[in-house]
Amino acid sequence: MADCDRMGRSTHSMDKSITLPPDEIFRNLENAKRFAIDIGGSLTKLAYYSTVQHKVAKVRSFDHSVKETENDPLYEISVQEEIIARLHFIKFENAYIETCLDFIKDHLVNTETKVIKATGGGAHKFKDLIEKKLKLKVDKEDEMSCLIKGCNFVLRNIPHEAFVYVKHADSEFRFQNTHPDIFPYLLVNIGSGVSIVESEDKFERIGGSSIGGGTFWGLGALLTKTKRFDELLQLASRGQHTSVDMLVKDIYGGSYGSLGLTGDLIASSFGKSATADKEFSKEDMAKSLLHMISNDIGQLACLYAKLHNLSRVYFGGFFIRGHPVTMHTITYSINFFTKGEVQALFLRHEGYLGAIGAFLKGAEEDTEPHAAGAQRNETTKRPDV
Amino acid sequence: MADCDRMGRSTHSMDKSITLPPDEIFRNLENAKRFAIDIGGSLTKLAYYSTVQHKVAKVRSFDHSVKETENDPLYEISVQEEIIARLHFIKFENAYIETCLDFIKDHLVNTETKVIKATGGGAHKFKDLIEKKLKLKVDKEDEMSCLIKGCNFVLRNIPHEAFVYVKHADSEFRFQNTHPDIFPYLLVNIGSGVSIVESEDKFERIGGSSIGGGTFWGLGALLTKTKRFDELLQLASRGQHTSVDMLVKDIYGGSYGSLGLTGDLIASSFGKSATADKEFSKEDMAKSLLHMISNDIGQLACLYAKLHNLSRVYFGGFFIRGHPVTMHTITYSINFFTKGEVQALFLRHEGYLGAIGAFLKGAEEDTEPHAAGAQRNETTKRPDV
Repeated sequence: MADCDRMGRSTHSMDKSITLPPDEIFRNLENAKRFAIDIGGSLTKLAYYSTVQHKVAKVRSFDHSVKETENDPLYEISVQEEIIARLHFIKFENAYIETCLDFIKDHLVNTETKVIKATGGGAHKFKDLIEKKLKLKVDKEDEMSCLIKGCNFVLRNIPHEAFVYVKHADSEFRFQNTHPDIFPYLLVNIGSGVSIVESEDKFERIGGSSIGGGTFWGLGALLTKTKRFDELLQLASRGQHTSVDMLVKDIYGGSYGSLGLTGDLIASSFGKSATADKEFSKEDMAKSLLHMISNDIGQLACLYAKLHNLSRVYFGGFFIRGHPVTMHTITYSINFFTKGEVQALFLRHEGYLGAIGAFLKGAEEDTEPHAAGAQRNETTKRPDV
Repeated sequence: MADCDRMGRSTHSMDKSITLPPDEIFRNLENAKRFAIDIGGSLTKLAYYSTVQHKVAKVRSFDHSVKETENDPLYEISVQEEIIARLHFIKFENAYIETCLDFIKDHLVNTETKVIKATGGGAHKFKDLIEKKLKLKVDKEDEMSCLIKGCNFVLRNIPHEAFVYVKHADSEFRFQNTHPDIFPYLLVNIGSGVSIVESEDKFERIGGSSIGGGTFWGLGALLTKTKRFDELLQLASRGQHTSVDMLVKDIYGGSYGSLGLTGDLIASSFGKSATADKEFSKEDMAKSLLHMISNDIGQLACLYAKLHNLSRVYFGGFFIRGHPVTMHTITYSINFFTKGEVQALFLRHEGYLGAIGAFLKGAEEDTEPHAAGAQRNETTKRPDV
């Protein structure tokens, strides 16, 4: 859904901003760690904090049955001041990391921030650049720990976060309710590569794969000469994979009945392009590639879920981007391989889990007793997502 | 190792011919079902039978300690006649199926064969063509059943069949001894697509993948404009995958120590080709593709082996072809994902398991009491592989 401008910034990122719940930890961040950065293999994701001051009319009504005099009011209006804390998100391609750091600099005016929370592999690689350019100390946080912290947070607090995707249904997105009991689950984070993390009270990275978003982007760019990720997804949505893939029926002339393999099942991804003397369209190749990668991730996710006895799999990372073909293929793959025993769930903030986790770690540290600025602001905040 | 001529025939296929063990079932095949055909998504494999008559000198020596007269001989030479039954193999690309059928026709001279055993998906698809051209009845056999029958046969009977591959060792190929107790095992048959079969007394196809030999061939052809499978393997053997793949160290600047991921591990296959403004060499792309596919197959094999509690995985199908890079990558992948608990084993007749199985089914039928030609030839045969 999100697209990027020429600087690699997402142009619709503001759509995803969330209002933080009225927890103690979000009360006093104005002059503290307002930015968290998550630098992956291809994309840099930012989560940053802002507050908006609202004047809100509060209506208090009175019980008529116990009205004592004619002059008692039926209701009372008071105007209260509320501060709503919101978390915003923006992403940049790593090639534009300098632009990203300029963006942070521009938004740091008049704050006393001295530290930036950073996670993802690039937190190590770009540490010196960030510190030099922003004159902030980089406070590194472990990637898996941030991912899981961010995932737990959105699952528990953000309405309309997790959903199952049902193609052809009246409503394609079936949102799950937030719930305090979220464990155990499997998180399949599809960035450039794939990390597969089991989360209970503790979490563990139990697997991964090198066939992920970077593979779709990289192979897609080589096959179609299209360099932009979202453009590749657009190509894929217009393509026919059946002209590139070898289906069961291309080999058997029909289904392979005794094994329950239908004729339309992909027997060999790109199997037709081996010998055919023809040009394949960009659209068809992109579609076939998307199928190949989504199916593979779905299959690996199932196998890990089965091995660890888990029935819920969330998909994070910036590969999916709300793209219907991708979600349908992953969902189909999960259903095919587990016969419905495992549920595929997608997340609205899929790409920002790490950045959210890093932000939360910063926020928690700021509310520790020694943190500067604590106890300064007691204005109420309310949830408003 | 095998290469193909312009007709898609393997030019070294004779190297793999095997002498059949001196079982009853191989005694009377001369005028019976001599050909078995296995038609996959990309390749047609033939197994065919021939006998060679040998005069063999047999030496019998006598025990000196019980010599009775000076004229007793020290040894005795007798000349015996033996017939050695051999099974030969040849493969054709499916595009040259007519050439393949001509080959069969040429070799059917002076036989009374009326039936040809056929397996693989193409046995269904090409049935009419085969029957019309050869004037033989196609007797179809189930693909998985032939694969397993062929695999069991070579494991039990053919010396130097199964081996583990050890890169940099004095001898890269560590052959396993034949053994009657072969169960349980997992067979990963990598043809155009991948089938994963668990074999005990019964067998079951427990999984599969569309990322197989057809994907290497098809994607490889699109990326390098090289249409021949073995040429793609040659390209791969000269390439550097690190210029195309995004490694852990490309993201982290080093290893990801807390997870035990070394810097040289592939984080994202083709991850560098997404954004780099440069041409990638055919060799490097082919190598990266080979790594991607071999790793993926290795990982899936491990996960299925673990789920089904199996410690031996044999790799069949025509993808590997004795190619060291492929065997090393699969072996590495299996060791990486199972910490050595699962053993990767390769097979010299990897591509012909289905054809061997189909041939055996035909041979068994011919030795049933009603079969034509039974009891006609009692000449001894001996194993000589």
